[in-house]
Amino acid sequence: MNNLFQITGTYTDQYQLTMAQAYFSRGEGEQKSIFDYFFRKLPYGGGYAIFAGIENLLEILENFQFNNDDLEFMSRWGFDSAFIEYLKNFRFKGSIYSSQEGDIVFPIRPILRVEGTIIETQIIETLLLNILNFQTLIATKASRIRLIAGNRTLIDFGMRRAHGLASYYASRAAIIGGFNATSNVKSGMDFNIPVSGTMAHSFIQSYDDEINAFRHFAQTWPQNCILLVDTYSTLKKGLPNAIKVAKEMESRGDRLKGIRLDSGDLAYLSKKSRQLLDDAGLNYVKIFASNQLDEFVIKSLLEQKAPIDGFGVGTSLVTGQPDAALDGVYKLAFAFGKPRIKLSENTAKTTLPNRKQVYRMFNSKQELIGADMVTLSGENAIHEMYHPFDDRKRMSLKNCTGEPLLHQMMDNGKRTTEPKTAFEIAQFSKRRLDELPQEYKRFDNPHNYKVGLSGELRKERNHLIDKHC
Amino acid sequence: MNNLFQITGTYTDQYQLTMAQAYFSRGEGEQKSIFDYFFRKLPYGGGYAIFAGIENLLEILENFQFNNDDLEFMSRWGFDSAFIEYLKNFRFKGSIYSSQEGDIVFPIRPILRVEGTIIETQIIETLLLNILNFQTLIATKASRIRLIAGNRTLIDFGMRRAHGLASYYASRAAIIGGFNATSNVKSGMDFNIPVSGTMAHSFIQSYDDEINAFRHFAQTWPQNCILLVDTYSTLKKGLPNAIKVAKEMESRGDRLKGIRLDSGDLAYLSKKSRQLLDDAGLNYVKIFASNQLDEFVIKSLLEQKAPIDGFGVGTSLVTGQPDAALDGVYKLAFAFGKPRIKLSENTAKTTLPNRKQVYRMFNSKQELIGADMVTLSGENAIHEMYHPFDDRKRMSLKNCTGEPLLHQMMDNGKRTTEPKTAFEIAQFSKRRLDELPQEYKRFDNPHNYKVGLSGELRKERNHLIDKHC
Repeated sequence: MNNLFQITGTYTDQYQLTMAQAYFSRGEGEQKSIFDYFFRKLPYGGGYAIFAGIENLLEILENFQFNNDDLEFMSRWGFDSAFIEYLKNFRFKGSIYSSQEGDIVFPIRPILRVEGTIIETQIIETLLLNILNFQTLIATKASRIRLIAGNRTLIDFGMRRAHGLASYYASRAAIIGGFNATSNVKSGMDFNIPVSGTMAHSFIQSYDDEINAFRHFAQTWPQNCILLVDTYSTLKKGLPNAIKVAKEMESRGDRLKGIRLDSGDLAYLSKKSRQLLDDAGLNYVKIFASNQLDEFVIKSLLEQKAPIDGFGVGTSLVTGQPDAALDGVYKLAFAFGKPRIKLSENTAKTTLPNRKQVYRMFNSKQELIGADMVTLSGENAIHEMYHPFDDRKRMSLKNCTGEPLLHQMMDNGKRTTEPKTAFEIAQFSKRRLDELPQEYKRFDNPHNYKVGLSGELRKERNHLIDKHC
Repeated sequence: MNNLFQITGTYTDQYQLTMAQAYFSRGEGEQKSIFDYFFRKLPYGGGYAIFAGIENLLEILENFQFNNDDLEFMSRWGFDSAFIEYLKNFRFKGSIYSSQEGDIVFPIRPILRVEGTIIETQIIETLLLNILNFQTLIATKASRIRLIAGNRTLIDFGMRRAHGLASYYASRAAIIGGFNATSNVKSGMDFNIPVSGTMAHSFIQSYDDEINAFRHFAQTWPQNCILLVDTYSTLKKGLPNAIKVAKEMESRGDRLKGIRLDSGDLAYLSKKSRQLLDDAGLNYVKIFASNQLDEFVIKSLLEQKAPIDGFGVGTSLVTGQPDAALDGVYKLAFAFGKPRIKLSENTAKTTLPNRKQVYRMFNSKQELIGADMVTLSGENAIHEMYHPFDDRKRMSLKNCTGEPLLHQMMDNGKRTTEPKTAFEIAQFSKRRLDELPQEYKRFDNPHNYKVGLSGELRKERNHLIDKHC
């Protein structure tokens, strides 16, 4: 087999391995540790993020191992032979407690907790961040576009502008955020996502006349024909030719599915196109649009009442523009029998120690109150929460109930939950997002979802800060 | 084997396959075609781009095929059985004429030309764009950082923020653009790149005392020890502890390689750290810095005379911030025996027809004059070139010689050039960039490198425009 890429033990930053060797050499590699995954800043200046990627991570971890090439390379690099020998049979045997994929998530609070030996929890850090940061970034972007697009069709067209192999997971994350389909056949196959597409300008250019290209495509794909109408002139040539071909299809008992606009003023052209199609009795022919779209362009088009039925979104979706990265981190909370903390001159970067749970708070009517509380694992009475950085601020949680958000998904290296498809995750995500009031979802200055600490966790953190200062 | 990802025939946009089926059904699939790869806008507002990715593309194309899963999926999707049968033995048998990897490239002019049957040249479009757009974006970013960093060490630290599997090629492209090493072990192994790294905060947190973590790491990796000094307090704890450990290493005949600063004011902290180290007689201990660096932050640090010996650059490098995508396209220039063109209401988007070559122009002293000229393939006398969009502008090329830029790299689906390592490509890239005058390399309003058309090409394009209007 060729053209293969395999995720193995060396799919990581070098320092994970040198640190692992250091623990191993001192016989400390089996010490129990806990790491938290969380991010500090919501992407796109928005009011929420959509967590994505955990299904893929769990699957990769179940099969994660060092192969011979890895070990030979490490041996040449200077790792010692006892450690190499240890890695030969290395498997990830830890536990993972995670937010559900597709859930709405917020800064500071742990999204996922990893427990295991210091070696195994350390080695997987880079892989975990690499998978979760990216899919969460893209699912969140997709979700913003879905919020604007209403029930219109959204298709991921981004493969050519995705970051190389990134396209594979990008298309999956787009579905979790609410897209309907992708042009990316590989991801469609592997993640059971509808694949979709139209035709390229090259197809039309390769014929002497546009109408022959249209005819020919309509004959080959009568059930699935969307004609691209802007190769020479949208209104003077493309539309009249598409209408002619649509009528020819009707005479054969077929129906033209749609046209695609890929340049020019999409608001103007879509209105003119709708009129021309309707005048020809082709009100069933849908209008698709593409060309550098994002949530803001789509919002503007719909505010102008552009009669567009579906959008193909590419670059900005799969690259997560303008952010391009989620700042997710993986921080040690417990090791060698003790809670652990990292200080920082920037208070907001001081970490939360020990094994923790997160609760989403609901009022007595079972409505979201816009607050997640981080507690020590096993805490019970939860009546108020503290601001994570401003010690004087607190918030009463009287008459509230809390839904625990971190669920065990892996035990001793084996999954403990049934795999879910991208669409099942998307449905769950939609329900969770529907519960979130509109103020958190607007693009400009969204309402600030509160994340706080329980009294016990606050006490433990302050104790550790005092100890280190 | 598990955790495998394979690039096969379905690593493409769905429309490439539906169009291929359409050509196939009419018996036109073997028609000869020519496509050009080019981009329209330089990334980062810069004055040049570094072309990267062709080595990987050639290797993938040599092994490109549809596997059984692909064909089953396509069969279920509605592709006809004769076409599926055809794809069973499909191999890319076309020719590729390309700029050399690592060369400086500019907008509008073809960077690469693909010749082959309409089916094979169409099917590979998405793969080609997916590989070349991304690596060119990242190599260009890396090159900008290298221009600023001078001879200082540059290490790619981006894996955790890269777009998932994108990290694989990102680390390679960073080397082509001038980086010295990567933290990404997998890419280091596969592309023969030095891997490098330091230690994480978690390593220090896991010990009760920072100095024990330092000691322990120094004992495990005496030849390769870079201590991270900002976990609790850089100047009050990290530096004094690092100095103590460096002295202990000296007593064993070892040498501390360096310290890493990862937060706070890097200019201030690096100066203070240098002073403390030098005062302790440790002038050989190097200072490395990381934390949200890019070419502008590094420029500012060096202008402040921060005594930093090496930079670890992550997010902005591997995601190509702030652009996040190169707008490279793949356009049909010839098919069914005729030159082809795509018009656009935006003149700058009208394509260049027919088989073409590109020449880099040098004056009689063999200096770059800052101009690439696009000609019809086989043209000889080249004395002047025309502005690509403004028909009235022309430029004399008297006494100039032209270096042809597109070289055959693949014939009948087989490579015709020897593979090059990332470092060989980086060396070539450095030579080419050294030839380019400084004005083209500055960040603010760089000088505009000219790209023009030969008289013959201009004539052919204007003829085709007239025909379609």
